[in-house]
Amino acid sequence: MKFTQAQILDFESLYRRNFMNSITGVKSAGLIGTVSTKQQTNLAIFNSFVHIGATPPHIGFVMRPTTVDRHNIDTIQSQGFYTINHVHTAIIEQAHQTSAKYDSATSEFEACGFTPAFKTPFTAPYVKEATIQLGLSFVESIHIKSNDVHLVIGEVKEVYVEEKYIQADGFIDLAQAATVGIGGLDAYYKITPLARFAYARPDQPVKPLEN
Amino acid sequence: MKFTQAQILDFESLYRRNFMNSITGVKSAGLIGTVSTKQQTNLAIFNSFVHIGATPPHIGFVMRPTTVDRHNIDTIQSQGFYTINHVHTAIIEQAHQTSAKYDSATSEFEACGFTPAFKTPFTAPYVKEATIQLGLSFVESIHIKSNDVHLVIGEVKEVYVEEKYIQADGFIDLAQAATVGIGGLDAYYKITPLARFAYARPDQPVKPLEN
Repeated sequence: MKFTQAQILDFESLYRRNFMNSITGVKSAGLIGTVSTKQQTNLAIFNSFVHIGATPPHIGFVMRPTTVDRHNIDTIQSQGFYTINHVHTAIIEQAHQTSAKYDSATSEFEACGFTPAFKTPFTAPYVKEATIQLGLSFVESIHIKSNDVHLVIGEVKEVYVEEKYIQADGFIDLAQAATVGIGGLDAYYKITPLARFAYARPDQPVKPLEN
Repeated sequence: MKFTQAQILDFESLYRRNFMNSITGVKSAGLIGTVSTKQQTNLAIFNSFVHIGATPPHIGFVMRPTTVDRHNIDTIQSQGFYTINHVHTAIIEQAHQTSAKYDSATSEFEACGFTPAFKTPFTAPYVKEATIQLGLSFVESIHIKSNDVHLVIGEVKEVYVEEKYIQADGFIDLAQAATVGIGGLDAYYKITPLARFAYARPDQPVKPLEN
């Protein structure tokens, strides 16, 4: 079935958002944790993380102006530090609930049943219930004019991940860690390994990676 | 286990790339198809697609300067049109093989066992074997200085997706379409639905979406 751009723009608003948010394929699922100068903690789910580079270790995510946790983003920029915590299969309900529009005096940690974990000297709170936790410092925010969204880029300052999830070549086995994927705005997926392939070369057939 | 930024920077190069590419969570898997003025078709796998916005319908992906398919990107900018084709479970080997550094006279379509499908009036080739196909026009390329990468943004001009994968509210069921996720540089994951949740509200518990 074919849809033209004109038809997509003619979709009812929520239908178009569901369609366009799922058409990009499987997405990451992470909880961003912050704390304000007044020691107010905030937590919000994002599904738009993207690898920017390994050297320096930078991660980006796309933030919408209408995102419920606008105060969360203000805190990232003013405080300079935030955490990304992988969502795993056992915490998808609570993670989804952080997308509710809580008033600014409410901590989504408490409201959604998560425990803030502070690990000095890092100032932003981790999600204790998450098995993979990253601490980042704010690098820059790039405004994308066409859709009035921001690409927020951070530098990885520390990572907490159990050794058993890390393979000999540095690959972190997300399926072992039960990290989930997201489809559209509200669908959560379990992931199961199909294969890891060796570095592809023009003169060789595809082969499984040998560790 | 804790890793500091200093330790990450101290990793051996490939170990760091594996680590940093998997730490962002589950990623999208799409084949980008182009055709040059000389009618040379090109195809390359990317795992960095990100939803930019629904109105206008924009999708981004991150491109590295070292990406094997540099000629592919040049073609996107010069020709103005490209396709994104979802990778599904039955084509992961061939899809991975498109990451090999073929010489510029070779079409990855032919070399990797894919069929270019031209659908007029759109000029770029789709992957016939893909169940979800998107045709885009180039909008802009944003340079991210810190890592010397580009965020390439395109506007969706047309979408081909079987009606049976689209739910009543516009959500495209990626698991039904067998769209895969990617971990790190070379791991492919099957996805299985866990849940879709209703729009979250502060005064209500999380509940499954009712269609």
